[in-house]
Amino acid sequence: MLRLIQRGMGLKWWRQLWAKSSLRLLPPSYAVPDQKVSYSSHANKESTSFVTNIFNGHLAPENVFPFPSVLSPEQAQSLQAMVDPCTRFFEEVNDPAANEELESIQEETLAGLKDMGCFGLQVPEELGGIGLTNTQYARMVEVVGMHDLGVGIALGAHQSIGFKGILLFGTKSQKEKYLPKLATGEVHAAFCLTEPSSGSDAASIQTTAELSPCERYYTLNGGKIWISNGGTAEIFTVFAKTRVKDVTTGEEKDKISAFIVERAFKGVTSGPPEQKMGIKCSNTAEVHFDGVQVPAENLLGGRGRGFQVAMHILNNGRFGMASALAGTMRGVLRKAVEHAANRRQFGSALSSFGTVQEKLARMAMLLYVTEAMAYVLSANMDMKVPDYRLEAAISKIFASEAAWIVTDEAVQILGGMGYMKETGVEKVLRDVRIFRIFEGTNDILRLFVALGGMKHAGEELQRLQKSLSNPVGKVEALCKEIVTRAKRKVGLPSGLSLQGDVHPDLEDCATLVTKAIDLFGEVVESLLLKYGAAVADQQFHLKRVADSAIDIYAMAVALSRASRSLLLKQPSAQHEELLCRTWCHEAFQRVRQALREANSLAWEESFAGMKLISDALVKNGGVVAAHPLGF
Amino acid sequence: MLRLIQRGMGLKWWRQLWAKSSLRLLPPSYAVPDQKVSYSSHANKESTSFVTNIFNGHLAPENVFPFPSVLSPEQAQSLQAMVDPCTRFFEEVNDPAANEELESIQEETLAGLKDMGCFGLQVPEELGGIGLTNTQYARMVEVVGMHDLGVGIALGAHQSIGFKGILLFGTKSQKEKYLPKLATGEVHAAFCLTEPSSGSDAASIQTTAELSPCERYYTLNGGKIWISNGGTAEIFTVFAKTRVKDVTTGEEKDKISAFIVERAFKGVTSGPPEQKMGIKCSNTAEVHFDGVQVPAENLLGGRGRGFQVAMHILNNGRFGMASALAGTMRGVLRKAVEHAANRRQFGSALSSFGTVQEKLARMAMLLYVTEAMAYVLSANMDMKVPDYRLEAAISKIFASEAAWIVTDEAVQILGGMGYMKETGVEKVLRDVRIFRIFEGTNDILRLFVALGGMKHAGEELQRLQKSLSNPVGKVEALCKEIVTRAKRKVGLPSGLSLQGDVHPDLEDCATLVTKAIDLFGEVVESLLLKYGAAVADQQFHLKRVADSAIDIYAMAVALSRASRSLLLKQPSAQHEELLCRTWCHEAFQRVRQALREANSLAWEESFAGMKLISDALVKNGGVVAAHPLGF
Repeated sequence: MLRLIQRGMGLKWWRQLWAKSSLRLLPPSYAVPDQKVSYSSHANKESTSFVTNIFNGHLAPENVFPFPSVLSPEQAQSLQAMVDPCTRFFEEVNDPAANEELESIQEETLAGLKDMGCFGLQVPEELGGIGLTNTQYARMVEVVGMHDLGVGIALGAHQSIGFKGILLFGTKSQKEKYLPKLATGEVHAAFCLTEPSSGSDAASIQTTAELSPCERYYTLNGGKIWISNGGTAEIFTVFAKTRVKDVTTGEEKDKISAFIVERAFKGVTSGPPEQKMGIKCSNTAEVHFDGVQVPAENLLGGRGRGFQVAMHILNNGRFGMASALAGTMRGVLRKAVEHAANRRQFGSALSSFGTVQEKLARMAMLLYVTEAMAYVLSANMDMKVPDYRLEAAISKIFASEAAWIVTDEAVQILGGMGYMKETGVEKVLRDVRIFRIFEGTNDILRLFVALGGMKHAGEELQRLQKSLSNPVGKVEALCKEIVTRAKRKVGLPSGLSLQGDVHPDLEDCATLVTKAIDLFGEVVESLLLKYGAAVADQQFHLKRVADSAIDIYAMAVALSRASRSLLLKQPSAQHEELLCRTWCHEAFQRVRQALREANSLAWEESFAGMKLISDALVKNGGVVAAHPLGF
Repeated sequence: MLRLIQRGMGLKWWRQLWAKSSLRLLPPSYAVPDQKVSYSSHANKESTSFVTNIFNGHLAPENVFPFPSVLSPEQAQSLQAMVDPCTRFFEEVNDPAANEELESIQEETLAGLKDMGCFGLQVPEELGGIGLTNTQYARMVEVVGMHDLGVGIALGAHQSIGFKGILLFGTKSQKEKYLPKLATGEVHAAFCLTEPSSGSDAASIQTTAELSPCERYYTLNGGKIWISNGGTAEIFTVFAKTRVKDVTTGEEKDKISAFIVERAFKGVTSGPPEQKMGIKCSNTAEVHFDGVQVPAENLLGGRGRGFQVAMHILNNGRFGMASALAGTMRGVLRKAVEHAANRRQFGSALSSFGTVQEKLARMAMLLYVTEAMAYVLSANMDMKVPDYRLEAAISKIFASEAAWIVTDEAVQILGGMGYMKETGVEKVLRDVRIFRIFEGTNDILRLFVALGGMKHAGEELQRLQKSLSNPVGKVEALCKEIVTRAKRKVGLPSGLSLQGDVHPDLEDCATLVTKAIDLFGEVVESLLLKYGAAVADQQFHLKRVADSAIDIYAMAVALSRASRSLLLKQPSAQHEELLCRTWCHEAFQRVRQALREANSLAWEESFAGMKLISDALVKNGGVVAAHPLGF
């Protein structure tokens, strides 16, 4: 504690950190419509987010325990009434291989998807949609993800990001004008953010929108790349720089604004479909805006609010990715299990070999955790939990990596057959690869998780520091916090407990979770004290902090899910207990190792070594080491 | 020691183990021509193989230290005279995207490859080839692997396995008849082992070859699948079951024999090209033999010797895969470095971000180790080292997984661009995927490494046991061995040392290698004593034993390579020291963790859990856990 005070950290450095890291949060004054989300630092202070809280070693079980259940019996019933026919449709009508070959979705499939209302799943019924909750939507896209990720992208690019901005931020007249024809699939939507020079760094876009002197329209100029549905959409949510006057200083600045743009506007063109590794039936194209006149009333979410609109749409859309990929894994796991059960080598079924058993068990665990994350997240959103940014990012990272591993292992179990187009699994591997890249690469999202959490932890430290210099008021609470941190420092359990939140049979796993949070809080504090604001530049450390946060959250959701199953005495309860226990055992060891790496001198040296190695490679334009033969 | 004697392990159980595991070795009586390879148990006893020796905690540095250098100045010169034009050819003439599109190699490329002698690189000059040593061949295929793995497979399927049997086991007249036209590429060859019901379990093939009563021909019946060059080759090395009479017992048994089969023989047909995930320009097809009459003189390597011939060809061919993939990684790393250096986000080049630096550094380390393995192996083969099976298997496993990781990370660094066909990296990822599957899946090869090493260690224990019960003769050596093992048991360094073998600046890494060998030897002994013959069924443990062996060997070759560079004061010596040190630091921790897993009660429980999870999945035909929403 003393060192903290000596360092005299001010709130200022966090501002610098955020400015520097370019991972900006919504400013406190920005009230997001519809969802009552506020990212003000006050909200952060009192966040109920499980992940945000572990950064200062706190346990906030309420969003995760008990496993949230948000569907009313009626909602569950109406959902089930949609899931079954949709599943049959994908089994009987949709042909993923044909879609891929065609590089677009077959007409018959498109028509069927429209009939089922799949283009407007979350659009309110009065505007022509089905009006699903997030949880219901998650379950529907799980069906799609299980059968055809290319179709999933086309649908997701349309409603999860393409017109989500209108749904979340649109005015009444914007909604009424656009949503009905989008909801039916009569026209498709696309989300236009990425530019050639601006991928992860979304704030640096170059497309401009200049307000006309008459203030009746904006003139849009610029080009977007890798736009899903870019060649097929009629309605685009486009992000462009606009000149905005600061109301207090009067200074003019470039700030991003969002616009609803129609293909029908003069000057909108799109390029040919990009040739991709996978998700081939989903159209990806450049979209160009050449002096496009966009009516002023098509400004979306307020002038200069575009960055926040974009981040909020992406943040809001991540839950669907997790459940879609859970569906993918379920399908792939089934194929791998079938093969392992039926294929015989050395006189036995593959499934009798330990090396195959280990693969299948790991696949099942990864799926179990992904499903738990996906449905905790969608439920949290339906519960109007105010802060779910970190959980959404973690779910996207986890699901996309889990799906990659599960599909890759399925290919391996299928062996030669896995490599052949015929089996359909290699296609899934190609499709799945993009999920680690798009809508926030997993690398950027890891930094987002680590920095987002550390910001919160830093503010807590801050408050603690202030309270220590002037300990009026809640002295008892202050003492408790100090004792907790002191205990942790010397490796004692800090007293965190999930007792009562988990099934008694899983208390050993609960102990691993609380132990992991203790270790985590201790390392985060130590990094904050060691690096101060410069922690934002310690990406080797941040990666390990993020990995640990991901694993701790994964343990928690698995624990919650298995606890519920045991409590409800579900037929699969014992199996789920096993999944949870095996998962937690390994995840805890990974967390311990990652935190050791984030906080040890030996690893500090390794990090420095890797930096030097990389610098040399860059300087040399490739391999530096002399070839073993000399040439 | 006492426990060992009490268990009274006999040689018998090892025989059982081998019979059971179906990972058979060449019988002692089988002398392999050309290469003076003998796999008799006597040879194993005195093996100079680094990997074989670590299984009983011994250090046999001679094949690895100093880094072997086998090319004479003339050989190096003539090799270099080939490498440069071949590189230019691949840069200027070969078009990987066009080959892929065409699903075959462009005519111009084929002609150029023939001109350069690329179809007969190791065929003796007097038979129309170039007569390269293994090291020279490795360097040439590195060039191919760097530019086009599809072409690499077509060439490799032809000479590395297709006609390798003729080169290694052919009679003079077989060689004279077939090699000249194969060496020029006038006709192509293919290796026909895999069948629908027999992939990893090669011994279980169903194709039959029945000797005619007149003993002048064999009648071949059966079908082979996934044969590289299967649709384009004129000459096939085919494996089939034949009835063989045991000379001692007179009993008739089915044993595999190898045959040279020409497409011109009546009854040979092949299927259409398979549609694959990658390596599309390399033809893969079924090959059918319908009552094909094969002249008796086309029997290859002796009647009933087919399994050994097949294993020996595969074993002999693995070094080329490692160097080809080293080339692949070098090409991909260069693209990733270029992109990281030039792409700017958040105001800085990607290469300034720690998260990218870590990726690039890991890619460089993986390449460094792969190259070291590839050229130690080819040199060892050129040095006529008698036993390199485990090193060959490890090199194939390591190279194929390293190439997968490196290419996957390159895609990630390139982001959206990495997913587009245009950049060419996604193609490499698709191409590379097959290498973890074919010519022995990495899973099977891991078991091969673990069991192969354990067999050796078991025999050593055996001898020790015998010597203890009747300690005549070398009492001193016996005592030394007992003291070494006792020290290890209580965690003391056993006295292994690489001093003198490594550069003094790398002695810390050398200590990590010897420490790892101590830990490894101890755990292997403990597993042998615990499970006896049943260790062959402990695949969860064997996987970790194999992983440790791979990492220890990887440390050793990196250490040897960096030591040489420091000794020769090469310009890249400091960089190589850094690669080696960073690698060894991490690899040692992985080894320690894997060995902990292989030898702890907590992990035993996890393994049991995973088996139960897998069994339940198989029983259920897929996912067992109830869906989070209940449906």
